[in-house]
Amino acid sequence: MGIAHVGHAELRVTDLEASRDFFTRVLGLYVSAEDDDHVFLRAWQDWDHHTLVLTRAETSGLEHVAWRVDGPDALGEFERQLKGLGIETAWAEGGAGVSLGHGDALRFLSPAGIPTELYWEVDRYVEQDPALQSKLPSHPQRYTGNGVHPRRFDHVNFLVDDPQASQEFFSDQLGIRHNYYITGDLGQGEQRLASWMAKTNLSHELAFMRNRNQSGSLLHHVAYFVDTADQMIRAATILADAGVKIEWGPGQHGTSGAIFLYCIEPSGNRVEVWSGGFLLFAPDWQPIRWDPETSPLGLELWGSDMPDTYLTYGTALGGGVPQPA
Amino acid sequence: MGIAHVGHAELRVTDLEASRDFFTRVLGLYVSAEDDDHVFLRAWQDWDHHTLVLTRAETSGLEHVAWRVDGPDALGEFERQLKGLGIETAWAEGGAGVSLGHGDALRFLSPAGIPTELYWEVDRYVEQDPALQSKLPSHPQRYTGNGVHPRRFDHVNFLVDDPQASQEFFSDQLGIRHNYYITGDLGQGEQRLASWMAKTNLSHELAFMRNRNQSGSLLHHVAYFVDTADQMIRAATILADAGVKIEWGPGQHGTSGAIFLYCIEPSGNRVEVWSGGFLLFAPDWQPIRWDPETSPLGLELWGSDMPDTYLTYGTALGGGVPQPA
Amino acid sequence: MGIAHVGHAELRVTDLEASRDFFTRVLGLYVSAEDDDHVFLRAWQDWDHHTLVLTRAETSGLEHVAWRVDGPDALGEFERQLKGLGIETAWAEGGAGVSLGHGDALRFLSPAGIPTELYWEVDRYVEQDPALQSKLPSHPQRYTGNGVHPRRFDHVNFLVDDPQASQEFFSDQLGIRHNYYITGDLGQGEQRLASWMAKTNLSHELAFMRNRNQSGSLLHHVAYFVDTADQMIRAATILADAGVKIEWGPGQHGTSGAIFLYCIEPSGNRVEVWSGGFLLFAPDWQPIRWDPETSPLGLELWGSDMPDTYLTYGTALGGGVPQPA
Amino acid sequence: MGIAHVGHAELRVTDLEASRDFFTRVLGLYVSAEDDDHVFLRAWQDWDHHTLVLTRAETSGLEHVAWRVDGPDALGEFERQLKGLGIETAWAEGGAGVSLGHGDALRFLSPAGIPTELYWEVDRYVEQDPALQSKLPSHPQRYTGNGVHPRRFDHVNFLVDDPQASQEFFSDQLGIRHNYYITGDLGQGEQRLASWMAKTNLSHELAFMRNRNQSGSLLHHVAYFVDTADQMIRAATILADAGVKIEWGPGQHGTSGAIFLYCIEPSGNRVEVWSGGFLLFAPDWQPIRWDPETSPLGLELWGSDMPDTYLTYGTALGGGVPQPA
Repeated sequence: MGIAHVGHAELRVTDLEASRDFFTRVLGLYVSAEDDDHVFLRAWQDWDHHTLVLTRAETSGLEHVAWRVDGPDALGEFERQLKGLGIETAWAEGGAGVSLGHGDALRFLSPAGIPTELYWEVDRYVEQDPALQSKLPSHPQRYTGNGVHPRRFDHVNFLVDDPQASQEFFSDQLGIRHNYYITGDLGQGEQRLASWMAKTNLSHELAFMRNRNQSGSLLHHVAYFVDTADQMIRAATILADAGVKIEWGPGQHGTSGAIFLYCIEPSGNRVEVWSGGFLLFAPDWQPIRWDPETSPLGLELWGSDMPDTYLTYGTALGGGVPQPA
Repeated sequence: MGIAHVGHAELRVTDLEASRDFFTRVLGLYVSAEDDDHVFLRAWQDWDHHTLVLTRAETSGLEHVAWRVDGPDALGEFERQLKGLGIETAWAEGGAGVSLGHGDALRFLSPAGIPTELYWEVDRYVEQDPALQSKLPSHPQRYTGNGVHPRRFDHVNFLVDDPQASQEFFSDQLGIRHNYYITGDLGQGEQRLASWMAKTNLSHELAFMRNRNQSGSLLHHVAYFVDTADQMIRAATILADAGVKIEWGPGQHGTSGAIFLYCIEPSGNRVEVWSGGFLLFAPDWQPIRWDPETSPLGLELWGSDMPDTYLTYGTALGGGVPQPA
Repeated sequence: MGIAHVGHAELRVTDLEASRDFFTRVLGLYVSAEDDDHVFLRAWQDWDHHTLVLTRAETSGLEHVAWRVDGPDALGEFERQLKGLGIETAWAEGGAGVSLGHGDALRFLSPAGIPTELYWEVDRYVEQDPALQSKLPSHPQRYTGNGVHPRRFDHVNFLVDDPQASQEFFSDQLGIRHNYYITGDLGQGEQRLASWMAKTNLSHELAFMRNRNQSGSLLHHVAYFVDTADQMIRAATILADAGVKIEWGPGQHGTSGAIFLYCIEPSGNRVEVWSGGFLLFAPDWQPIRWDPETSPLGLELWGSDMPDTYLTYGTALGGGVPQPA
Repeated sequence: MGIAHVGHAELRVTDLEASRDFFTRVLGLYVSAEDDDHVFLRAWQDWDHHTLVLTRAETSGLEHVAWRVDGPDALGEFERQLKGLGIETAWAEGGAGVSLGHGDALRFLSPAGIPTELYWEVDRYVEQDPALQSKLPSHPQRYTGNGVHPRRFDHVNFLVDDPQASQEFFSDQLGIRHNYYITGDLGQGEQRLASWMAKTNLSHELAFMRNRNQSGSLLHHVAYFVDTADQMIRAATILADAGVKIEWGPGQHGTSGAIFLYCIEPSGNRVEVWSGGFLLFAPDWQPIRWDPETSPLGLELWGSDMPDTYLTYGTALGGGVPQPA
């Protein structure tokens, strides 16, 4: 029983039309399905029905992040385990509403309030538009190159008051491997400032960074992957010329070696474009420690300054035990 | 008095709608203007009104290639010079028809039948579509990244029976610098097989390669420039997934160091996507000779084989002294 | 109990000095250790002691390929399992000879004669040369960029007479996931021509392609990973200018979306430089089938022809049950 | 009579050994010749004897920048013209000392004190080292890819108190085309803050930016060109891991579209790695004006902040009328 990989995220957006335009025309995602209040999106080589949902809402933020489990029995086992910890769970019925495209899902809030969903059944995406069908069985749809055009969904990152506690919860309870972390001394000895984690060989699928304002848990960003550094440069130019604010980057995280840029989508959620960096294969991987001396290189290898907003700005998390759709 | 740079080409296309779709949706050029029989196109950073015209025709090929001269008096001087050589010239009235976007143009056929136009006045492109206007004064329009999305028009290349004669005509009469050439021994001693030439610092704006069939002069290709090798790789994938036949490449011409791919647009004209390679600055540049031993590396550095069609297939040239539009 | 990932390969080389020069100066690997008959090599971000051993030999080929297991008990369990299948096993003592840098290793030949090693303990590489030490804890050594300079070892590929049988052995006995395959009709109905497999999220760590000569099992190639398509282009130019024969590429395998080139190192073994393509995360991944119609795009998406040598040339495998070093 | 192109620069360096190490091992330039006090350097495809000289000195800075003229008579004509302006000139004897590799050179200081040299005769570089000789006649030496490995020398940039005056001198007296400029209002109405100029089709070979301290003329940087954005990313990582301070970048100048990074070499001179951006072909090019509203995008398109040092830090210029070597 275990987690397989991070699967999708549901973003709350205050301006659904503007956010849809950003994610499709500028970022280059594709619409799988939509109704008046939801837009289901995927990158060109995302195999599943969707990897992002935009949901019309009063406030922007993350409604939930969903992980696929590694087999049909895992949901029930996780339900029992979470209940054993005193964590409230709920089932979202699959196949409709925001659960379109996947099966019944188990939902819960982590102790820090991360709205998390687990699911097993999922619909593989099948392209219906003849103009976008590809002859290649490795292409769930045609590669057009339009917009930033990432290859796939990559990861999700949160600001929390205590990153160590969140890392330990997700490592201990969901088996997400701890890959690297940053420590700092804020006056009370060295403490954890950030942790990056993954179940797969990716450098991370989930990260927790310390909310400098200590104002609770927030969505930091969702990330999509482009193939190359050159596509990151191209992305930056597309975004800049479309009038999208780039908060930071292109830069390189020394921690993972990945190239990044962060921008703010029209409803205020932060989105990362991400490329490159290491994969981790060692089954006994020891998390890399970045101490106060090396962590500036870890955050940005080339020397650019982290913007002040980076450790303070985030958007709200779904604010209660998620209810079935 | 002299030539400034190659400016645009007019392609004859048998299927205007399919060719328009290829050049806009797949290659990522933009329409400046169009009527029932012509589509005027430019790359995103082409500064002038257009760099390519598609003209509906019974046979595909090149109707004319146009060079901008370096001042207002040059047209008259070239007219006198060409007449002195016994070459028939004609004037195309500017500002309308296929001469939309530039001034009166002097037209003639080179001795090998290359339909050539010279012009001085030209309209700078001004974006009218608010969705494509850029805040950057260096961007005549917004950079969207859609399709292959080349930066600019680059060069034009012909198959001719005698490349040395054509090179000498354009060097001697129009002052186009001879930059590099290939020789071979076809049984009668070493002879010229191809020559590449430019007025600007580009490696070439004009090339002549020996028609292996010795069947006269043909358009070999028109070329657009993308910024990077990575964009070439991306272009190849876009073209392949759109069902466009890539004849050769991506490869690297050892001669110039440029990365290339050749494809055939829906009406049958060959189009090159081109990137990188050297610029030449020396005012006393001596053309580089590629002899039979080194020329295979000159044609393709990495070792791929030139397809048989490369030195035999071309499309027709405008078949007479061009008449005013 | 299971396999973790492919770890290293031992190449037999007939010209150790020339091969060492190729792998270090041209390909840009680094020497971890060496003696008169062995050179231990790793890419700049390979974390373990080495990922390649060159061993002086009378004939070139692959002496063994080694997989790391996922825990200390796995070796004994695999030993029992293999003995139960009637497969002869042997132990190579760790820490010395060709087993320098890792612990005791279990060796066996697969039914098709693939010389395979399993190991658990491994030494993490620690840079001793001050000029190559990095301040970055994510860099086991400094990133210099010299030569092709791959980031890490990627995979190994074999020609065998029956790819389906080898795929099934490694899937069934070692738990290596089957990711995609090619079928063809050679006159007796559709049959398996090639299969690609991985334990990790890589598109493949191991592949079997049908030996067109049906002359038994051979090493097809070992592969190192570069970060980007641009680095592949750069690699091709470095190799070509160093006089190294590029057999095929740069091209794109439509199967995985990876960019490739194949070259022959001085002792005759084929080496691939590899970049990009998909990662696979689905725990219930169904192998993609490439049938006779689509398989040409699967082999090379952009349209270049597979060279005749690709399915016939390989180098010999270690020819018996490997003995302890 | 005129200028052909910028040819080389002579840097004064306080630590010749450390600077030599930076320019060769890290930046990847090659030594053409050296003596106790000079190191002559070139990029791999620089065709001439050298494009940079490092000269041991008490203070770092630029000793001179040299332009090649477009014919043998130009030097004498420029000498007469400059004398007519009351500018003192001197001749440096060619072929020895710091003039190794080129002919007799005319030297003068511009009114703002830019130490300028003009020369006509130049030695084409011929590789003597068999290990670096290339079979390609287009490669003056082998392409190894080692270090940052730029293709060629690109441009030189100065801080001056009055950029408009310097631009006008070089446009009016040397015929260097004015391509784009930035204006600002420092309290006395809009004034010129920077100008970029070229004789060739490059976006610039020479630039003047306003010294914010109004402390006179200083070298801002010399620049080398890499082929692609990806090579810029790679360069940044090489520099960072070698402990070289990157002052700014990678970023994109919106003015030219070029990708840049600035670093400080061990003797304190600023060096730029540069790639991409536009070429300018129009013979009647009108310089692009970047006003106070658009100039932030012109300086850096993606939104990174210009460091404070950028308009204040420079190194000294050769301090008098240059004397013959």
